[in-house]
Amino acid sequence: MNYNGNKAKNIKIAYIGGGSRGWAWGLMSDLAACSDISGEVYLYDIDFQAAYSNEVIGNMFNECENAKSSWSYHAVKNIGEALNGANFVILSILPGTFDEMESDVHSPEKYGIYQPVGDTTGPGGIIRAMRTVPMYEYFAENIKKFCPFAWVINYTNPMTLCVKTLYRVFPEIKAFGCCHEVFGTQKVLSQALDSILNIKGIDHKAIKVNPVGVNHFTWITEAKYKNIDLFPVYEKFAEKYSETGYTENLDNNWMNNVFECSQKVKLDLFKRYGYIAAAGDRHLAEFCEGKWYLESPKKIRQWGFALTPVSWRKGDLKNRLEKSKRYISGEEKVSIRETGEEGVNQIRAILGLEDLVTNVNIPNIGQIPNLPLGAVVETNAVFTDDSVKPVMAGDIPKEIYPLIARICGEQQMLDEAIAKRDIEMIFNVFVNDPLVTCSLHEARELFSQMVLNTKDYLSDYDLSSLGV
Amino acid sequence: MNYNGNKAKNIKIAYIGGGSRGWAWGLMSDLAACSDISGEVYLYDIDFQAAYSNEVIGNMFNECENAKSSWSYHAVKNIGEALNGANFVILSILPGTFDEMESDVHSPEKYGIYQPVGDTTGPGGIIRAMRTVPMYEYFAENIKKFCPFAWVINYTNPMTLCVKTLYRVFPEIKAFGCCHEVFGTQKVLSQALDSILNIKGIDHKAIKVNPVGVNHFTWITEAKYKNIDLFPVYEKFAEKYSETGYTENLDNNWMNNVFECSQKVKLDLFKRYGYIAAAGDRHLAEFCEGKWYLESPKKIRQWGFALTPVSWRKGDLKNRLEKSKRYISGEEKVSIRETGEEGVNQIRAILGLEDLVTNVNIPNIGQIPNLPLGAVVETNAVFTDDSVKPVMAGDIPKEIYPLIARICGEQQMLDEAIAKRDIEMIFNVFVNDPLVTCSLHEARELFSQMVLNTKDYLSDYDLSSLGV
Amino acid sequence: MNYNGNKAKNIKIAYIGGGSRGWAWGLMSDLAACSDISGEVYLYDIDFQAAYSNEVIGNMFNECENAKSSWSYHAVKNIGEALNGANFVILSILPGTFDEMESDVHSPEKYGIYQPVGDTTGPGGIIRAMRTVPMYEYFAENIKKFCPFAWVINYTNPMTLCVKTLYRVFPEIKAFGCCHEVFGTQKVLSQALDSILNIKGIDHKAIKVNPVGVNHFTWITEAKYKNIDLFPVYEKFAEKYSETGYTENLDNNWMNNVFECSQKVKLDLFKRYGYIAAAGDRHLAEFCEGKWYLESPKKIRQWGFALTPVSWRKGDLKNRLEKSKRYISGEEKVSIRETGEEGVNQIRAILGLEDLVTNVNIPNIGQIPNLPLGAVVETNAVFTDDSVKPVMAGDIPKEIYPLIARICGEQQMLDEAIAKRDIEMIFNVFVNDPLVTCSLHEARELFSQMVLNTKDYLSDYDLSSLGV
Amino acid sequence: MNYNGNKAKNIKIAYIGGGSRGWAWGLMSDLAACSDISGEVYLYDIDFQAAYSNEVIGNMFNECENAKSSWSYHAVKNIGEALNGANFVILSILPGTFDEMESDVHSPEKYGIYQPVGDTTGPGGIIRAMRTVPMYEYFAENIKKFCPFAWVINYTNPMTLCVKTLYRVFPEIKAFGCCHEVFGTQKVLSQALDSILNIKGIDHKAIKVNPVGVNHFTWITEAKYKNIDLFPVYEKFAEKYSETGYTENLDNNWMNNVFECSQKVKLDLFKRYGYIAAAGDRHLAEFCEGKWYLESPKKIRQWGFALTPVSWRKGDLKNRLEKSKRYISGEEKVSIRETGEEGVNQIRAILGLEDLVTNVNIPNIGQIPNLPLGAVVETNAVFTDDSVKPVMAGDIPKEIYPLIARICGEQQMLDEAIAKRDIEMIFNVFVNDPLVTCSLHEARELFSQMVLNTKDYLSDYDLSSLGV
Repeated sequence: MNYNGNKAKNIKIAYIGGGSRGWAWGLMSDLAACSDISGEVYLYDIDFQAAYSNEVIGNMFNECENAKSSWSYHAVKNIGEALNGANFVILSILPGTFDEMESDVHSPEKYGIYQPVGDTTGPGGIIRAMRTVPMYEYFAENIKKFCPFAWVINYTNPMTLCVKTLYRVFPEIKAFGCCHEVFGTQKVLSQALDSILNIKGIDHKAIKVNPVGVNHFTWITEAKYKNIDLFPVYEKFAEKYSETGYTENLDNNWMNNVFECSQKVKLDLFKRYGYIAAAGDRHLAEFCEGKWYLESPKKIRQWGFALTPVSWRKGDLKNRLEKSKRYISGEEKVSIRETGEEGVNQIRAILGLEDLVTNVNIPNIGQIPNLPLGAVVETNAVFTDDSVKPVMAGDIPKEIYPLIARICGEQQMLDEAIAKRDIEMIFNVFVNDPLVTCSLHEARELFSQMVLNTKDYLSDYDLSSLGV
Repeated sequence: MNYNGNKAKNIKIAYIGGGSRGWAWGLMSDLAACSDISGEVYLYDIDFQAAYSNEVIGNMFNECENAKSSWSYHAVKNIGEALNGANFVILSILPGTFDEMESDVHSPEKYGIYQPVGDTTGPGGIIRAMRTVPMYEYFAENIKKFCPFAWVINYTNPMTLCVKTLYRVFPEIKAFGCCHEVFGTQKVLSQALDSILNIKGIDHKAIKVNPVGVNHFTWITEAKYKNIDLFPVYEKFAEKYSETGYTENLDNNWMNNVFECSQKVKLDLFKRYGYIAAAGDRHLAEFCEGKWYLESPKKIRQWGFALTPVSWRKGDLKNRLEKSKRYISGEEKVSIRETGEEGVNQIRAILGLEDLVTNVNIPNIGQIPNLPLGAVVETNAVFTDDSVKPVMAGDIPKEIYPLIARICGEQQMLDEAIAKRDIEMIFNVFVNDPLVTCSLHEARELFSQMVLNTKDYLSDYDLSSLGV
Repeated sequence: MNYNGNKAKNIKIAYIGGGSRGWAWGLMSDLAACSDISGEVYLYDIDFQAAYSNEVIGNMFNECENAKSSWSYHAVKNIGEALNGANFVILSILPGTFDEMESDVHSPEKYGIYQPVGDTTGPGGIIRAMRTVPMYEYFAENIKKFCPFAWVINYTNPMTLCVKTLYRVFPEIKAFGCCHEVFGTQKVLSQALDSILNIKGIDHKAIKVNPVGVNHFTWITEAKYKNIDLFPVYEKFAEKYSETGYTENLDNNWMNNVFECSQKVKLDLFKRYGYIAAAGDRHLAEFCEGKWYLESPKKIRQWGFALTPVSWRKGDLKNRLEKSKRYISGEEKVSIRETGEEGVNQIRAILGLEDLVTNVNIPNIGQIPNLPLGAVVETNAVFTDDSVKPVMAGDIPKEIYPLIARICGEQQMLDEAIAKRDIEMIFNVFVNDPLVTCSLHEARELFSQMVLNTKDYLSDYDLSSLGV
Repeated sequence: MNYNGNKAKNIKIAYIGGGSRGWAWGLMSDLAACSDISGEVYLYDIDFQAAYSNEVIGNMFNECENAKSSWSYHAVKNIGEALNGANFVILSILPGTFDEMESDVHSPEKYGIYQPVGDTTGPGGIIRAMRTVPMYEYFAENIKKFCPFAWVINYTNPMTLCVKTLYRVFPEIKAFGCCHEVFGTQKVLSQALDSILNIKGIDHKAIKVNPVGVNHFTWITEAKYKNIDLFPVYEKFAEKYSETGYTENLDNNWMNNVFECSQKVKLDLFKRYGYIAAAGDRHLAEFCEGKWYLESPKKIRQWGFALTPVSWRKGDLKNRLEKSKRYISGEEKVSIRETGEEGVNQIRAILGLEDLVTNVNIPNIGQIPNLPLGAVVETNAVFTDDSVKPVMAGDIPKEIYPLIARICGEQQMLDEAIAKRDIEMIFNVFVNDPLVTCSLHEARELFSQMVLNTKDYLSDYDLSSLGV
């Protein structure tokens, strides 16, 4: 890499999971839209063919009329080739296939456990972590070997466990996890400004917040727009919409627009706890007691959000595969569009092109004094020249400490349990989870089934105690 | 108070709740059995007649043949008279009557929530705290006024909230909470020594433990007998008895002998988490997810312990009232017996007569670094001349941190909620509780009923939002 | 105050010490140069005439050709009138007169104690704090009364004690201390880039640093320019110039250009401790053992910096008074110039006009985990809409911890000692100071003399123990 | 090792530095005087002959009329033989010879630096640490290899560095440092009780204190005798004796009785800081600014204590060697006497024979929250069955924090500097030390000389930068 005035050139980005038909295309678009950085992107995927298709597609972005920079894409068969000397590493994988995810999400339903997402927490998130963490141990070891000074950006869920694993295996790693859920809540705050104070059209980035907590269960303890304290505004908004929900379309992000919610969970949590839960309702509901928002499909509908069946994801993937083919055949043209993701701006800030303050998932070095040191937490951070430093976010307020400390402690325990490949300890995280509302006996049965269903990806574990 | 060589004389003890027919008699017996302290005990109770009966009974102990010291008992009608200039204050009250406790314990049953004790945590403990905390605010203010340098010993449940309230209202107070549950677990460890290593007859005080956690949900992270590490011993004990339970009679303490358990919960928790839960199973079960050990009366029986119906307590009280009458009439003689309580030894240690290391409930000043500062926690402490200082107990281990941090956080939140008389915030503690396994809607219904049932003792609160 | 699009209008700024002929004119210039904020500045000074002159001068700035905004200036006789409803408060006073400062700086010389500045630490700083803190208690009380939500910016020395006092008296205050010394060191780093890597013309703001420590004894633990780690660069720079000093003119700031240094102290400290001391050498030397850099006037010259005699300040003041007259008479025109101060940008960031990350002095809430909580420390902070939050700066490195912890502890002790008006405790801070290299007996003599010399400003203290 | 009822038998103690003619004989006496423990003591010393002499002498103690237990002593030539399977390890060595100590103590005198002891801190302590730490690294490695579960008791100075090194090299070690200096201050408090309140003959163990700080610079923040707060008593004592000193004979301990002091330093520190410094004045003076109590031999005499010339130690050693010969020849008989040391009681407590609360030097795990975690600090600890746990001592009070934090930070830095064998970093500790009152240039000269003088014991270091 080198600089030419205020432009950074010859950047090498390694994209692990580079066969992705979604995040990858978004990144390609964001890179092409950015005028002051350029270089090469190495695509590594266990499905080489997918990576290769993306090499072709990626290079097409250079031809877009409004492309402001040029990037060359290379699919490689060896992770070392992708990582070697990389300046940035992007981790964005699907751990296993949607068949495994189908088990993660839907197996618990016969025990009355419903998961709108199932990739972060709850039974689904825990089993997914069992698959994912060993892969991340492998990534961390290879990053240590091939590009120890690279900045590593994680997009994979379960976010907290992925980032924790990277730091556990390679403590000097410069890694962080990047998630857009807080942005969605900033948009809700912008809507509240509109609805309550008739201040219209405020970009979510102009809403300044202090997020605390863990990924997908992040809470906002301060929110300002210029000199306006948004808490009283949001309180009126909650009074107005907590019964009916707020149903204006929130987001056009490709991941979210089929996954909408009416903010009723968010508003209920605000009315009950006095702080602003800052993720989509589908995520938030999964961190609360199972009986609160996920008691039954009927109740879930009343709370104004949908369960996302994995069959939908399968169909969606099929569509994206077809789109990939159309791109490659030239039947459809790639185009540069606004993704709303911040990855490229984070890269630019780290390169010293423009400072950025945004939320990020990194180990707690004291930014949240009353959560355990070393636990991966989400707060704001300052991104600047070769540096990402958390902003002091302060203690989790007393009202929401029990909710968050419990989850954070479970994640810490799950990290240790998986690190030790200790099935019994993993089960004890599982049975502790707020969604596991069934009996001890049923929980054990469910756990065994879910492990069995996904055992092809669990060869690292001794499953004999489960009879698997 | 003054000293005569190694004897302390003219000690003034104020006993709040001095009409008690149980703890009070035990204390009278322990005081009479102790040769190096003497003085006066002032009995204050909202039921003056009860206190007066105890004045008569207390003075009878001086006549026991084996009495080693002399104490004069005085029932007083005014709390200031009891407290004024006291050296020690003992707090041991029943907040409300057994009718209120009946609602605390049994109202939740129709929602499938079973509580073996119902005075510490869970729905019952929370509603009981609503009654108790305002009384403790009153006690703290009066202690500040009448005897700010006195040492204050609390026996009332909910222990954590009572001690927390004393420190909240009067931060300089010298108070601690005293509980014998850990001793019971030391006895189990002594039984394990017998059962596994054939070492017999070891007194529970010779079993040295490091307790951490909160009252009635205390865990032992180290246990030693001389140079023997008791963890591997207990592991074998758990393997041997976790299925069948260990049914030797554990305790002849009057409170406990009708409240036995077979240790199956304790052994199950050890097998699952690797640490020794250190309270009776009836208490432990109440801090775990409701579905674990308290799913149904049938399951509870299978776990080897009994629910204690409040009707039993009413009957027991009747018996004790009759016993009181027999004492006063001379029909029955008071006698000095071993209670197993440590209150008198704690007093002796504070007086400088003999140092003592034992478990105690006091605010966290760092003895458990990963629980919130200021939260009331249970660890060992050194009792010596006018001083009680906690021993560094260390972090709660990762395996049990989620269980304990959640509870500790809820207690902190409940303290604040009751301090503010904030009914909605109290409800949010209630609905967060591990035993509240019903839906949000049902939880609200149950909460309202329980508050309504006990509203005579809740005049401090604005209950209009509950329609009460 | 109100907004008009991205402009903030009708801002009220209260300037305490508004008669200043230096900082005040700089601020007037910076405000006039700023296009997106406008409003009123209330000037309060114990010398009303001085404030009134500045009212006249301030209003002249509106007439400058290149003025981008309009501000109206008002001198007032009552502090409440200045503060009432203010959005921002600027504190920039001279505590006492230069006669007092003359005693602060020069009295110690006959004991072999030389102070190049004498306003921050050492004997001079301590005695100055005795005068200043009671004034700041008064300011804090009035801010609490008249404008509790205002943002308060302090420029007065001793910075740490001033800011600490504001928070001690009014804990909810939104105050911070602002100092340009770190900028000077960023300029040295820019010079090192030029000298060692031949990278020329880098603005100091493009040098990104992580400062830690206390005001005027701040150290940089990380320094980056784009992807260049500046530590190896600075190491070479230190090797090159530590003997001769680096004598290129550093700064044209009015305060600094007569106060130059050759960076030899800074480079020596780097060679010895491995971290970059980030203030002018004149300040740094005052925090080190007196024998290191301030042993004698001769040694001081060898270390490449000058003592600033207070007579110079008196002459300079005279010059500025004359300049003030020329401004008012119209003999000389005010003009807008670059001051290099960040105050106006901090105001703009707090108003939500543009985020800013810069160094600031505020109480430690954990941004430096191994310094005492509550001590005023200097680190980076994020300035954004109605919010200033410190960035996690991390522990003080082991190598410099003894130097800084000692000073920070002394400042904490001095704060308490002055708060209590405890002369003996103040003396014990005095005698602990690294510059007080004389004997206990001489120290006591010196302390008494210095207090006596400045007793007109110490009427708050009982000085009888000093025979004063 | 095994137990027979309440007696522990077949204990193996390894004594490193077992040729000692002082501490070793005291230990032999204490062991013989103790009825409930017995076993073997292995004596290892680099001077085997000295160890062998002690084998002979040690076995003689069994013949004493009043011996209550039997111990067999074995001198061994190999450290592994001594350590292998040991239950306890005692470390008590002289690092180097008195010739090296002569340089440590007296070389600085020509720079006006006087050290009454010179083995703990100051120039002498630092150079001594350079010799000692590599030896302790060797001990720690061998303990890890031969007896990882043994309890290790250190008596060697510099205490803090020795204990720190053991934990640095082998973090799981069960080690602590044992020092009697606090006992001496408890005796002073007993004298104050006598002198001020006419309460006579109180044993120092009945004086209960809360010590905080680092070894030999320990301070007492609470002191009680029964219900008497000793602070007001000590205040009157200080008023009475701070001018004249208190000259009653303090101690008959063999180490101390020629090393008396009049407590003037201790009383002066109390009057100035309000807390009780808890070591002999000779030690305390070495941690304070050199000009306070050690300005000149004349001033030192005025402060009422003596410098201990190393020539005295050489003479004393000669006497003890002769005594050793007389023991062996039978010319003189060994006898059991009271040493006042607590080592044997600590051993008994760890064996489960009787709990003990006493002061000890171990790493900070939070017992002093405002000193760095991991630094070796001195506080009370509870000794019980296979366990030593610190008591929460609380924060260092603000008044003495600057004094102690500085020293603690220097010790942490010295530990790291020596671990790295980084001569320049060691020098920077040296020059930071409160006793190093000379100029930077002189300090460097002195450091080089002291290193040169003792270079025979510094073969682990690259001394070329010093021209050595």
